[in-house]
Parts: sequence; structure tokens; C-alpha cells
Amino acid sequence: MFREKIKVLDCTIRDGGLINNHQFDIRFVREVYKALSEAGVDYMEIGYKNSKKMFSAQEYGLWKFCDDEDIHKVIDGIESKTKLSVMIDVDRVALEDIKPRKQSPVSMIRTACYVKDVDKAIHLANHCAEKGYETAVNLMAISRALDNELTECLHQLESECKCQVVYIVDSNGALYQETTEFLVKKAKDIVKSKEIGIHAHNNQQLAFGNSIEAIIHHANYVDATVYGLGRAAGNCPLELMLGFLKNPKYDIRPILDLISKEFLSLREKMEWGYIIPYAIAGMLDEHPRASIALRESDKKDDYREFYESLVGEVEE
Amino acid sequence: MFREKIKVLDCTIRDGGLINNHQFDIRFVREVYKALSEAGVDYMEIGYKNSKKMFSAQEYGLWKFCDDEDIHKVIDGIESKTKLSVMIDVDRVALEDIKPRKQSPVSMIRTACYVKDVDKAIHLANHCAEKGYETAVNLMAISRALDNELTECLHQLESECKCQVVYIVDSNGALYQETTEFLVKKAKDIVKSKEIGIHAHNNQQLAFGNSIEAIIHHANYVDATVYGLGRAAGNCPLELMLGFLKNPKYDIRPILDLISKEFLSLREKMEWGYIIPYAIAGMLDEHPRASIALRESDKKDDYREFYESLVGEVEE
Repeated sequence: MFREKIKVLDCTIRDGGLINNHQFDIRFVREVYKALSEAGVDYMEIGYKNSKKMFSAQEYGLWKFCDDEDIHKVIDGIESKTKLSVMIDVDRVALEDIKPRKQSPVSMIRTACYVKDVDKAIHLANHCAEKGYETAVNLMAISRALDNELTECLHQLESECKCQVVYIVDSNGALYQETTEFLVKKAKDIVKSKEIGIHAHNNQQLAFGNSIEAIIHHANYVDATVYGLGRAAGNCPLELMLGFLKNPKYDIRPILDLISKEFLSLREKMEWGYIIPYAIAGMLDEHPRASIALRESDKKDDYREFYESLVGEVEE
Repeated sequence: MFREKIKVLDCTIRDGGLINNHQFDIRFVREVYKALSEAGVDYMEIGYKNSKKMFSAQEYGLWKFCDDEDIHKVIDGIESKTKLSVMIDVDRVALEDIKPRKQSPVSMIRTACYVKDVDKAIHLANHCAEKGYETAVNLMAISRALDNELTECLHQLESECKCQVVYIVDSNGALYQETTEFLVKKAKDIVKSKEIGIHAHNNQQLAFGNSIEAIIHHANYVDATVYGLGRAAGNCPLELMLGFLKNPKYDIRPILDLISKEFLSLREKMEWGYIIPYAIAGMLDEHPRASIALRESDKKDDYREFYESLVGEVEE
């Protein structure tokens, strides 16, 4: 697939940080930035911009807050065309922490929200846009959105929001290609003045396939992570996406090196990927939190019992 | 997805046997058969019917030959609606080994061949059909088939072959959804009197996605394996396919149990799945043999060097 407009955003450190409370050290994040830069990846999302008034800097690592001086320790001295992105959450950000774009190493700010919170997200995204940033709104848990509410949300984004990109986020890893096609087409139909993006989770080994599906239907922003690192089942593997995209600006080799040198050993210490309780959560369209709790218990491999516990919750 | 005509064929023991020279013991194969039967899976492919004149029974396990008495040790005493299948290869089978259907526990015989060998495959499949078996022809390495040769091959299968099913086999794990769609539509257009099947390899985490894609375009036979077991990157995971298909005859629970009790420990002893050298082979549309050799060497995790060795082979 070659389409010049396609942009790849790597969110390895941001989504991977959900596993380890954002405790990646500077050396590691610098290695990732260096490899992404050499690979020609368009954006690197380095973490969240959460308020230190709401979250403890003792409990969480640097990438929960993304202070500029920490970002500079990662990027200074490395030649790069890769732009930096941070994510903000509704109700967890202090707007005074966001400096004007010209004073910051960050280029893009993405606001994550549920469909029901889109008004708050539009407010945040417009604030960031006014400070000079590229902006996006990431609609989480899209597999659970009611169609009429999603329609209204998309119309609001089109008419009220200054963001450049609206992302479909399959938080539960529940989408199949047919629904991905439906959602991307629907978003394209309504949000005509912006780009559409896809952020897929890999519960059912469909993150890459669904990202391709979104690209086929003209999504131009795709999220990926090195070796699929990310919460629970992880995300679309960046190395596969670079193998698929034909734009000669991308080079897979630095990512292959990075996996050999850093990610194989990381995988021994952190768990993510194709693990049956995450697959079960995906096929039942459930948030992975019950699966994550199971994996931390002594019943981590009692798959049938876990399945029964989820399907047994059916109530009128 | 609900379509009554869809049939799931589990080839765990057959394709998995390519990793361990078909050395699964009777107890293990019996556990697989029991779980597949309880899960309502339509077919279980238990191995190859290769000639003992060509292959040594000392070197290979039982499922290289699939003698009836060994099959009976697996199935006797287990209530089941799951039909048995065996695979035969062009030039590796002795036709006198194939008994009339009524004297055999096997219901289906699938002939695997490359497009260039389709005449031989038609001869074998027709022979088996005349002995009373359900038959299929599995077209291997389809990603490497030239379009005009594939066209001729499909016309021959339609007009000359008594088989019920023609399978598209992505031996290299190289197909994306677009090509899967193209190939399934092409096969459906030409092979009008038979069903189309899909056998996908998981090099790029697309085996499940491509199988869904094939189903969307009216393939009705899908191969899968428990926990994705199979040579190199393995196959479409059966548990995901059963989660996707809505036919109430399928029950995922026995497969979840089987994974908990048998496949997690098996994975400690046998290697398959998402491993970067297999991903590289898939994206470069190469047979996995170089990747398998790499994984048995002391350079098993030198991914960049391996990538360079494959792309460096370019010659006019």
C-alpha cells in the first residue's frame, strides 16, 4: 500500500506505559526515539500529559507527565524528522501545564475520550489547537458506542472541533474487519474536513488486519507499537505496518535491531501479546481489566472458568 | 458471522506435525480429538498418508502415515460427530495404502499440490473420490502463483476434478486482505460447482483476519489449529475462529480447556507463532525454510542480518 498521506504514529512508550506505570528509563526511551527516527516513522507518542496535582510523581514514571526537560533528555543530540506527540485525558490534565507550541518539543496533542465525553474533548483539543499544536481526538471503546450517539459525536467533531484527526480506538480489541469498515466509512462520511485514524488492540490478532482495513477505507493515520507492546494484548506491531506500507521513506531495519536488542529481553519482564484471557475479552467485547486482574492472580491460566465468569454476567 | 454452510477443519495434528516429525503420542492426539468433538468442530485432520516405502517409520511419528489401527487408538470410545481427514502429497503416496472409504475411519482426503502439479493432484483426488471419500485439493504457495497459470489450474479443477473443495493455501503467510479477497473471488468465479476453502499461515498475524476475509467473500471451508499450532508461525487459531462464528453448534469451552491443560506446556517445548524471522519471510513472500534454519542456529535473534540476507538475494 502506497499513499503519501498515510502517517504512522508510534505509541510504544505511551501505550506500553500503561503496563508499568510509565516507568521506562531515559536510556530505553532514547533508544526507541533513535530507532523510530532512523525508520522514518512520522510521530512518536511519548506519554501522557497528566496533572501532577492529580497523580503522584512518586507512584508514576516520567511518561505520565512528559515534562519538557525529560523529553529533552530523550531527544537532544539525535537527528530526527519524527514529530513528538503526547496524549491528554479528559479531567486529568491541567491546562496551565500546556505551554505554547513554540516553547515545547511536542508537535501534536491527542485527546482521548469516550463518545459521551466528546464535549470535554472538543474543549481540550481546541485549547491545544489555539496554543499552536496539531491535535487529534481519540474515540475510545468505539465497539461499545451506540450508533446514534456516535453519529452525533462525529457531527460535533466535524463542526465544532479544530482537530486535524479523529481516531477510532478499538479499546476492547473487539472489532472485526466488517465493523472496522463500517466505522471508518461512517467517520469519513461525516467528518469530511479531517483525517481519520485507527488505533487497534490486538486481543484477537486483528490489530494489524483491522489497521489495513481502515487504510483500505481511507484512514490515513495509523497507530502502531514496536513488537506490539501495549496494555494487555498490545497493539498493531510497527514492524508489520512498515513491511506493509510501500512509502520508501520508511525503513524497517532500525526497528528489527531495536526488537533484537531491547524488546526480546523486555518481553521477559513485562507481559503483553496474544494471551487467551485477552482474546476472550476481545471476542466478548469487554474491557481488558478483568483479564489483567486474572493474569495477576493464581488462576491466570484457568481459561474456561474465566470465560464462564464473563458470559455468566449476562443480566436483563 | 453465521452461515450454516461454513465448515471448520482443525489441522492441529497434521500441520503441527511438521514441527516435530509427526511425533505426537496417542494420549495427546486423543485429547485433541475429544476436545474438537465436544467443541463441534466439523473435521479433524490427523496427519499425512505418506508411503512407508518412501519415508522411514523409525524417523517419523505415527501421523506421517495414519495407519487405521493408530487412528482407532485415538478415536475409539469417544462420542463424536467430527469427521476425520488426512492429507496426501503428490508423489509421496502409495495409492494401494488407501482403502475404500467404507473400510476406513477417515472421511476426507485432501491433496496438497503446487499450481504446476495440479494434473497429478486431480489424478489423486479423483482416485480417492472413486474410493468413496470426500476430497479437496489444496493449492499451496498461492502467493507465488502466476495469474495465468492459476486461471488454467482453476478451470481444470472445475472441469476435471471430482473434489468438493478447492483450498487457497497461503504457505508463505504473505497475503494481505486485498489479495485474499482477489484470490477467493477469482476461485469462486471459476470453480462454480465446488466450495472454496482457506488455509492461512500466521507469519504477519493475518491468518485469522485473512480467514475472515475469505469467509466474507464466500469461502465456506476454513482451516484452523488449536492455539495456532503449526509449522513456523503457525495457523489461524481455532479458538478465535470459534469465537467469531455464530453457529450455535460450536462451543469454545473445550478448546479453552485443551489450551490450559495441554498447549501451554507444549509451547514450552515446541516453537511456533509470532517470531520476527517468520514475519520477515511473510512480508517478503518467502517460504519459511530459511527462517526455520535461522531459529535453529546461534543467530536466531539477529533479525536485521537475516532481513538483509533475504533482500540481498535480489538478482535479475
